[in-house]
Amino acid sequence: MKALAFVETGKVSVIEKPIPDLGPNDAVIKTTAALICTSDVHTVRGVIAIPPGRVLGHESVGIVYKAGANVTRCKEGDRVTVCAITPCGHCDNCQRGFTSQCGGMLGGYKFTTQRDGNMAEYFFVNDADYNLAPTPKSLSDEQALYTTDMMTTGLAGAENANIPPGGTVAVFAQGPVGLCSTMMARLLGAGLVIAVESKPDRAALAKKVGADVVIDPTQGDVAAQILQLTHGEGVDSAIEALGHPVTFENCIKATRPGGTISNVGYHGEAGNTLSIPLPEFGLGMGDKQIRTALCPGGRERIVRLLRLLEAGRVDPTLLTTHRFPFSQVERAFQMMVTKEDNIVKPLITF
Amino acid sequence: MKALAFVETGKVSVIEKPIPDLGPNDAVIKTTAALICTSDVHTVRGVIAIPPGRVLGHESVGIVYKAGANVTRCKEGDRVTVCAITPCGHCDNCQRGFTSQCGGMLGGYKFTTQRDGNMAEYFFVNDADYNLAPTPKSLSDEQALYTTDMMTTGLAGAENANIPPGGTVAVFAQGPVGLCSTMMARLLGAGLVIAVESKPDRAALAKKVGADVVIDPTQGDVAAQILQLTHGEGVDSAIEALGHPVTFENCIKATRPGGTISNVGYHGEAGNTLSIPLPEFGLGMGDKQIRTALCPGGRERIVRLLRLLEAGRVDPTLLTTHRFPFSQVERAFQMMVTKEDNIVKPLITF
Amino acid sequence: MKALAFVETGKVSVIEKPIPDLGPNDAVIKTTAALICTSDVHTVRGVIAIPPGRVLGHESVGIVYKAGANVTRCKEGDRVTVCAITPCGHCDNCQRGFTSQCGGMLGGYKFTTQRDGNMAEYFFVNDADYNLAPTPKSLSDEQALYTTDMMTTGLAGAENANIPPGGTVAVFAQGPVGLCSTMMARLLGAGLVIAVESKPDRAALAKKVGADVVIDPTQGDVAAQILQLTHGEGVDSAIEALGHPVTFENCIKATRPGGTISNVGYHGEAGNTLSIPLPEFGLGMGDKQIRTALCPGGRERIVRLLRLLEAGRVDPTLLTTHRFPFSQVERAFQMMVTKEDNIVKPLITF
Amino acid sequence: MKALAFVETGKVSVIEKPIPDLGPNDAVIKTTAALICTSDVHTVRGVIAIPPGRVLGHESVGIVYKAGANVTRCKEGDRVTVCAITPCGHCDNCQRGFTSQCGGMLGGYKFTTQRDGNMAEYFFVNDADYNLAPTPKSLSDEQALYTTDMMTTGLAGAENANIPPGGTVAVFAQGPVGLCSTMMARLLGAGLVIAVESKPDRAALAKKVGADVVIDPTQGDVAAQILQLTHGEGVDSAIEALGHPVTFENCIKATRPGGTISNVGYHGEAGNTLSIPLPEFGLGMGDKQIRTALCPGGRERIVRLLRLLEAGRVDPTLLTTHRFPFSQVERAFQMMVTKEDNIVKPLITF
Repeated sequence: MKALAFVETGKVSVIEKPIPDLGPNDAVIKTTAALICTSDVHTVRGVIAIPPGRVLGHESVGIVYKAGANVTRCKEGDRVTVCAITPCGHCDNCQRGFTSQCGGMLGGYKFTTQRDGNMAEYFFVNDADYNLAPTPKSLSDEQALYTTDMMTTGLAGAENANIPPGGTVAVFAQGPVGLCSTMMARLLGAGLVIAVESKPDRAALAKKVGADVVIDPTQGDVAAQILQLTHGEGVDSAIEALGHPVTFENCIKATRPGGTISNVGYHGEAGNTLSIPLPEFGLGMGDKQIRTALCPGGRERIVRLLRLLEAGRVDPTLLTTHRFPFSQVERAFQMMVTKEDNIVKPLITF
Repeated sequence: MKALAFVETGKVSVIEKPIPDLGPNDAVIKTTAALICTSDVHTVRGVIAIPPGRVLGHESVGIVYKAGANVTRCKEGDRVTVCAITPCGHCDNCQRGFTSQCGGMLGGYKFTTQRDGNMAEYFFVNDADYNLAPTPKSLSDEQALYTTDMMTTGLAGAENANIPPGGTVAVFAQGPVGLCSTMMARLLGAGLVIAVESKPDRAALAKKVGADVVIDPTQGDVAAQILQLTHGEGVDSAIEALGHPVTFENCIKATRPGGTISNVGYHGEAGNTLSIPLPEFGLGMGDKQIRTALCPGGRERIVRLLRLLEAGRVDPTLLTTHRFPFSQVERAFQMMVTKEDNIVKPLITF
Repeated sequence: MKALAFVETGKVSVIEKPIPDLGPNDAVIKTTAALICTSDVHTVRGVIAIPPGRVLGHESVGIVYKAGANVTRCKEGDRVTVCAITPCGHCDNCQRGFTSQCGGMLGGYKFTTQRDGNMAEYFFVNDADYNLAPTPKSLSDEQALYTTDMMTTGLAGAENANIPPGGTVAVFAQGPVGLCSTMMARLLGAGLVIAVESKPDRAALAKKVGADVVIDPTQGDVAAQILQLTHGEGVDSAIEALGHPVTFENCIKATRPGGTISNVGYHGEAGNTLSIPLPEFGLGMGDKQIRTALCPGGRERIVRLLRLLEAGRVDPTLLTTHRFPFSQVERAFQMMVTKEDNIVKPLITF
Repeated sequence: MKALAFVETGKVSVIEKPIPDLGPNDAVIKTTAALICTSDVHTVRGVIAIPPGRVLGHESVGIVYKAGANVTRCKEGDRVTVCAITPCGHCDNCQRGFTSQCGGMLGGYKFTTQRDGNMAEYFFVNDADYNLAPTPKSLSDEQALYTTDMMTTGLAGAENANIPPGGTVAVFAQGPVGLCSTMMARLLGAGLVIAVESKPDRAALAKKVGADVVIDPTQGDVAAQILQLTHGEGVDSAIEALGHPVTFENCIKATRPGGTISNVGYHGEAGNTLSIPLPEFGLGMGDKQIRTALCPGGRERIVRLLRLLEAGRVDPTLLTTHRFPFSQVERAFQMMVTKEDNIVKPLITF
């Protein structure tokens, strides 16, 4: 089979690999469509060490090609959606409810970091009964793909933000994760959704997916702009969807006492510390809280996200700015590196 | 009346002041006993700016001397306990449930910072129906005093820590707040309480109030010691009860993925930032959370703390290392500055 | 002033009364508009005992006519919205967060049951700083009125229902409270909202405010219909918005294991017991929970509801089927008794 | 192997059966000790239909005899503790966190109801990595046995009861589950634990395990006694540990507005309905909630319960009133039917 693989720092290539083997609890999926994630750009840049030849990708959907002997909830030929995070369901962290930390910190993230990813013609899924969600007939592959990472991450950002019904929330940065956080903050009943973004096309997208207001961080202090929009109070909830220390600090500054800062930004390129500004943190006594999450997986959650798509509650396909056949995936990946042509998410079809 | 007041940076003195006046919702209390809090030492050192002549103190109990016309839940002569934090009960933050942030960040802390404190023969209490708890006959003033700050803060530290029943918790530093956090972590059902403390007398006290193990930070890396005690996992919950950036970082390092860092330490003297070590924070995606609190007040909570004392569940009077009449309060305060004679809490009687 | 008052069981009349007096924490409001609530129909029928001459009404908005000396958050002439429930903010139940139970069971409900209601030219509000919310300029009186009872009750129904994002919810009965529960279940991110209603006009309204499907209880067993719509699972959440024992039982039958039954129906006319069907309750071990609420009040909550209206998230004015000047309020009340002309909510203007 | 089996309604017998077979994710345990549970008495009486020859028992510990090929967290010869409830960890209800409802209502309860139980020389455990907890060396089999049902059920009763720290709780009936609920309510920080029990030996045991007061239901109305003990307020939390409609009603009557009724009693013999007394339920609007649970399982939880035993926090072995070798298990079972000699829990050794 063909697969997009890491070759060396900064370089990817489509290579030939055998179709993966499987155990009794696992499945192999024949890929029908995929999205490229900026995480892979970070990985190829060297932020996460992986061996040469490791397949990239963690946002794919497809059809069950083989199912292990113990797998009971799907069969060959079923159309399925698979989250980027594939927990085992039985380790300590899974039992505690922190399935993204399966087996250890960030351990639910297995594609590419622990084994081959799924930007390939076929891919392996561990613990298939835990991880495969049936794709509803009424949904396109493109729609379903957004549940695998963007929507579940955006939803985690909004859930962790403790937004009171009718409350105020600021979503920092409107890349794909930020746009989905905006969408999900709105879905969960926020009364004022403030998006923070300077690029005009992303600002426009933010409004389409649910922002009431977009503020431009190049036009003055962000926290000050947010305080002004909230009668000096600050927002109930701030969502960090960029992964930058300054943004993280602004989240704390823009949040009112008792508010929540929900981080879904990836701080892997941010040096080795984040800073908390103490005055706005109430010297550690302001009843503010900081919560973090990594793209929660599991069939049951993906089924709920698919239901939101079936019901037309949200439309994440607004994020698909480009489309390529798998034969042009190297070109698509290169565009995600350069961010040329205002690319947000490229759809790859197999 | 006589009162212990701030004179200038580094200097306090007993001065003469009029007995406070009151409005229809307020009360004036005749003080019968008090404890000195390290917060006042910080304040006198200049960390919080207050005018000369401002009365110190926020841990006092006494008898109702006068009650405003609208006050219905107590009458003159009643023995009452008053939390250090005295919320109004009706502002936005109070209605949101963040009563310590009454009227604005840290605004529930009114004694000394907004008006005269209560290390005085009489003291004023706003919103008496919200803030005065009847002192049960079976309790001594000394017992009741511990609910006004130490126990409610320690309990907030333990509550915010999300300790699973039978879970593991580390309490960093065994000063008065840390000791009460240890006591309360044990009270709420922790299965392993690890206290962090180097001073032998405080380590011994920690064991008396509920620690299973005490580790000495001078004997090697604290996080490493905690990981060793928890089979490499880290604790479910860490409580920062010192107010120091290194301690705060160690809390994050010692906590397992999905765990909670609960801050009750006062970071007013810590420079102007706290740092989060990113690898142990899962690069912002480790499902860890950081929560903060300031000494929650209100009659209803104090009544529950007094009930714990009545039932003999905890004994915070183990922290009383010294006793003075109010006539020697200047000497007692000086000992809290120097921490001589292993002082933990000095009881002042009126 | 003129006021709509209870005369005797089954009879109401507009009478003359003095404008109410007030204390230092209270306010008197000059009414500009009101809605009639079915609760008053129950009351007049004799379900709640009140003295003759007691003024009815608890859904009114207006302008501050007088404010007590201690009131700081509004002044005479301010346009304000007042919840039907007016807690004191300082009693035990208020401090515990159960403000609708202010001072005792259901004690936050003061209009008509404890003192004159607000279907009158002027009305008294206790604890004005706690209870008066400024009405935003951009909102009509009609819009604001829906926050005073219908929206806050509907929101409580949806909040207590523990609806997972994208989860399934059934709302039993589409009277005013049911319609607002449907609206709010949708607002909070439900993926499938099933409304239960037989009357065609209400079924149509349910779809307008957010139902995905409406099922007709006269067309077969309701629980069976819901099980069929949810692949045999039952819903995550059921909201009882009628106040009838059969409906309550159906909520339990239609809910999946681990699901929540949220009651906002008023069971005052239901005889003196509710029954729980044990098989569908897992013999008391099915991880189901039953929660209840009474129209939560307080300025902070009303401000969030008003914000939802300002942002156009919901439109409860769809429920206004009839409009009357206050001079015809007796006629309007009579229509609420007979439910003639498919009346849902009549707007009364002053 | 020998096993205690159901023969026909009202009759049990030790029979010969083959040692169970296993699949790749399962384990077979060689039993070393067991407790008899009253649930089995109900089952043998005919409350749950099971085929003749079905092995009884669900409270056993032992040593791993065989482990399936995919099992990674234990190996043959390991001493292990197994909860009475053995969820799969991957079905929808498990993913939702309601593992006791694994695969459907009450479906986590597999021993005896779905397959052979474990009052036998060997027993089968599905999903061994999810369900086997290593028994610490420092604990006896007798201690470990109490985690398999009594302690986890009692803890669920206390957790679901939402007891505020220092709050008040009433535990209705002091059978084994009630005694463990009392123990766990105390463990989680209740300030007043009221046990309800008429038998003197059980009343005495209740005090030993943590009750502050025991009230006798034969000495007057229980709810009235509880109201008197709580200054007319009612308790914050009531735990139903009997499984009787009158007890359930008393729980609602004894609970204050905003309080929680936590049911762990088994209502299988109670006819087919439970009743809710409406006045004390606030006509469905008193902010009371009713929660239910079934003996939560999973290794991670059992490890925490074992840790509580290691730390000496609780001593459930006080409940062991009788001891028998497995050869006398029929006699022991008969005593559990007749409740003669004040039997609470009989320990069976293999």
